[in-house]
Amino acid sequence: MAERSKTKEKILRTALGLFNNEGESAVSSVDIASVIGISPGNLYYHYKGKDEIIVELFADFEEEIRQVLSSPVREPLKIEDNWVYLYIIFEEIFDFRFFYKNQSELIDRIPALRNRFARILSLKEQTALALLSTLESQGHLKFDDGERDALAGRIAQHFTFWLQYHDLRHGTSPPKSLIDQGVFMTLIQITPYWTHGKGYAELLKDFVSEKG
Amino acid sequence: MAERSKTKEKILRTALGLFNNEGESAVSSVDIASVIGISPGNLYYHYKGKDEIIVELFADFEEEIRQVLSSPVREPLKIEDNWVYLYIIFEEIFDFRFFYKNQSELIDRIPALRNRFARILSLKEQTALALLSTLESQGHLKFDDGERDALAGRIAQHFTFWLQYHDLRHGTSPPKSLIDQGVFMTLIQITPYWTHGKGYAELLKDFVSEKG
Repeated sequence: MAERSKTKEKILRTALGLFNNEGESAVSSVDIASVIGISPGNLYYHYKGKDEIIVELFADFEEEIRQVLSSPVREPLKIEDNWVYLYIIFEEIFDFRFFYKNQSELIDRIPALRNRFARILSLKEQTALALLSTLESQGHLKFDDGERDALAGRIAQHFTFWLQYHDLRHGTSPPKSLIDQGVFMTLIQITPYWTHGKGYAELLKDFVSEKG
Repeated sequence: MAERSKTKEKILRTALGLFNNEGESAVSSVDIASVIGISPGNLYYHYKGKDEIIVELFADFEEEIRQVLSSPVREPLKIEDNWVYLYIIFEEIFDFRFFYKNQSELIDRIPALRNRFARILSLKEQTALALLSTLESQGHLKFDDGERDALAGRIAQHFTFWLQYHDLRHGTSPPKSLIDQGVFMTLIQITPYWTHGKGYAELLKDFVSEKG
């Protein structure tokens, strides 16, 4: 992350909290300044408006999610390892949830983010594909024509819309437990391609029930 | 559909075309009036602003998608029947695509639509679940615990975000051929649960290649 003054860091953390909890559209620069206890002019000295703050928050998110997506799972055969890995991805997205709730609108408003976000989507697909290919080449998964690519695409879509679907369907703020549900819904997509005797679905079920 | 004056119908059709092609946020009431060749005052006499037009377009969409989702597939075993049925659902969504591109924003702006849209999502899940349950009870599909519900939810999500994902990933207007791709991506999710000798994935591939 770029070096920042203490004030800048405080503005960014405060803005992120307010955006996530109250919705980006409901929060103004003046609100952010007032929560921190600085004047709007002081805030303006650091950031020329809300969109500049969003661009900088996006840069932080981008750096973190790229790091996660680029570190492969160590032992992709273990449900536990997959669970932890996916949990970290979903958690990154959860921490940046104001953006995922309204991606299309924000990208229309701040066009500089469009290509950068598209590259993250592409990286999500590549990461999912790499994970599935590893498991396939080790003989743990078996796909028919087209199924592996389709599944990788679905997993990337699931990362992208998991929060928005909850919002549209239930209209409530997502609880943090939604992360576990997101992980489960990802892994259960992989279960039918499992080649071994005891199905991945069953192993998954055992893991979830032990996990409590 | 409600009975409407010719002018009202013209306003709605024009607005829908403009919203779909140029994006809802880029189109004003004045633009709509000017394309039809009436004065903004005349348009205002019929609709008090853009959001009233959107609510009425939504009502049309709601009526049509409810009809489709409530009519079961006649022979769900045939790929052809499933294909046609799903095609019609995706086509309804495609015809109302300005809304699906920005659901969250529009629902925040027009709260009256929130519950109505949530009910459509719920109906999508029920329809998918009914279709899968029929195939399962006939012995054509086999699910482990939790897999059937998870798949029904994924299909409903796929209907909901298929257009938005294309937009985020590629940044271009969706071509009409995207409907076929949407149908294919739905059916290929069902293939691994197929119980018969020749896999559904293979049947699907044959069907797509014959279809050209």
